Amino acid sequence: MSEPLNRQVVLAARPNGIPQAHDFEIVTRPMPMPGDGEVRVRNLFLSVEPAMRGWVSSVGNYSEPVAIGAVMRALTVGQIEASNLPGMAVGEYVTGMFGWQEYALANAQTIDRRVPPPGLPIATALGILGINGNAAYFGLLDIGQPKAGETVVVSTAAGAVGACVGQIANLQGCRTVGIAGGAVKTRLCTEIFGYAAAIDYKTADLDTALRAACPSGIDVYFDNTAGPITDAVLRHLNPRARVVICGTAAVASWDPPPLGPRIERHFLVKRARMEGFVVFDYKTRYPEALAALTQWVSAGQIRYREDILHGLEAAPDAIAGLYRGENLGKRLIQLGA
Amino acid sequence: MSEPLNRQVVLAARPNGIPQAHDFEIVTRPMPMPGDGEVRVRNLFLSVEPAMRGWVSSVGNYSEPVAIGAVMRALTVGQIEASNLPGMAVGEYVTGMFGWQEYALANAQTIDRRVPPPGLPIATALGILGINGNAAYFGLLDIGQPKAGETVVVSTAAGAVGACVGQIANLQGCRTVGIAGGAVKTRLCTEIFGYAAAIDYKTADLDTALRAACPSGIDVYFDNTAGPITDAVLRHLNPRARVVICGTAAVASWDPPPLGPRIERHFLVKRARMEGFVVFDYKTRYPEALAALTQWVSAGQIRYREDILHGLEAAPDAIAGLYRGENLGKRLIQLGA
Repeated sequence: MSEPLNRQVVLAARPNGIPQAHDFEIVTRPMPMPGDGEVRVRNLFLSVEPAMRGWVSSVGNYSEPVAIGAVMRALTVGQIEASNLPGMAVGEYVTGMFGWQEYALANAQTIDRRVPPPGLPIATALGILGINGNAAYFGLLDIGQPKAGETVVVSTAAGAVGACVGQIANLQGCRTVGIAGGAVKTRLCTEIFGYAAAIDYKTADLDTALRAACPSGIDVYFDNTAGPITDAVLRHLNPRARVVICGTAAVASWDPPPLGPRIERHFLVKRARMEGFVVFDYKTRYPEALAALTQWVSAGQIRYREDILHGLEAAPDAIAGLYRGENLGKRLIQLGA
Repeated sequence: MSEPLNRQVVLAARPNGIPQAHDFEIVTRPMPMPGDGEVRVRNLFLSVEPAMRGWVSSVGNYSEPVAIGAVMRALTVGQIEASNLPGMAVGEYVTGMFGWQEYALANAQTIDRRVPPPGLPIATALGILGINGNAAYFGLLDIGQPKAGETVVVSTAAGAVGACVGQIANLQGCRTVGIAGGAVKTRLCTEIFGYAAAIDYKTADLDTALRAACPSGIDVYFDNTAGPITDAVLRHLNPRARVVICGTAAVASWDPPPLGPRIERHFLVKRARMEGFVVFDYKTRYPEALAALTQWVSAGQIRYREDILHGLEAAPDAIAGLYRGENLGKRLIQLGA
């Protein structure tokens, strides 16, 4: 009888820019056995984030880069199948940074939370009720501070974070305008996610389109792209506008930083504010967002989409696929049945 | 017997960039006679600000540009010599945006405040107890939000605003580092204005100098320059740093905006904030700053310098002179005796 094994996706090379399939390797290791205070989690869904590009980059970031040869850092949701941790029972579902692998050890520190069945699928713990919903909630409300009647513009507006931002802004009484790439995504923006208008950055003249879509100017810009899209949006800021920098998907490499139009004078004249945002800083406040988002999602006031790949073999190319724009909604990898 | 006359400095041409002497003209007009609710002020000191470059520019700014042929907009302090405004007596000193001219009409709306003799010279109403002190006070404390023990870096550190910023930051228990041009100004920074260190941007390698002067990184950057000085400072920001954009003296023209390194990723990773600031937004709170500054100046805790030119003829070249860096301290033009 053969030993049970654990397959893992490890980082094989250090990418500069977008990590590609060949930067990863699938290896087989012994099944991990939980020690005192530990549980073994069988991963059911692995998360795929645009932010993973930063997690494997050697360029200064908000966390240490994943080491070469280490399991790829990733949020997952799974089921406890062995427990030496009092209070955590076999069969319970948990979420945490358990990595791109079939099985993981976890303890009280590394388990983010239980995933009780809230009447919603457990995969929501990785998206709308996880990192994406949290990023939308705190980035928009804490940093963007939208007020009823204001105009909120979102880049990657149909994405897992962006779509949630637009809908939360609508719930605050704002006019929302989404920027996305292609006819399918812009249609999702207006038909599913409630944006008042959507702009296809691949075909539109951005200045003309923004002027038309934002007749009263822009008060809050939730930015997931940086680059030329952001340059265009900034030209339409209202006095006292707030810019939330949540992601920089449109810029392939920051080493060295590319050139763009200087913003100091414009920001002075407009008394505008730009602030960087990392969702993990809000960990202690996740319960607040979770409560609000669960209610909104359950009531049908916030809608979300998932893009589900199957099997660990899908992982190595999954980040590159995000940057090719091939997903519609939160990208997940489902393992097992 | 000849009519009494009023000499004025009017804007003769629209500069793009730094206004030069030939952009102004001195004209002679009839002496203005106060109507109901008005006073006539004899100007004693005219103010000269770096911000005047923006006031005459057709590029979008926070106020309408001065019209061609109009008296140059300027803060002044003067004495009332004729009054049809109840409560304002002949002989009182007042300050307001009365323009580069010998005599001005003013009313209850346009008089910023009486200048009672606070034991300090009346010219302080245009500098340390006026626009410069107010800009330093609100820009640093409201936008920069320095905490004791933090490192505060100031550009144009020996200037009328910068020197005050550094000293207020010292009073908050911060470590202060000034950036200025030339040996004379950097010596002023450390010997008069209390900076822990000063960097001569004309001779130093900025990255090396900033690393040496700011061993714990930079928490607050009060920026009066923009451009390459700012690029260097931003590279040394600490997590959660605050950048106050008060001026952009190092960039000659913003039409179109020059290129510089993009900051989005850096600001995301550092969760840093950049915010534009215009002192006139704080008008209703000037009394708070005035009270604090008067006390600090009277107690010798804040020191200031003035650079006084004489006669209306000095006005047309006075802004260009600021940008040539020829002044040490707040530039004023004294009229009459």
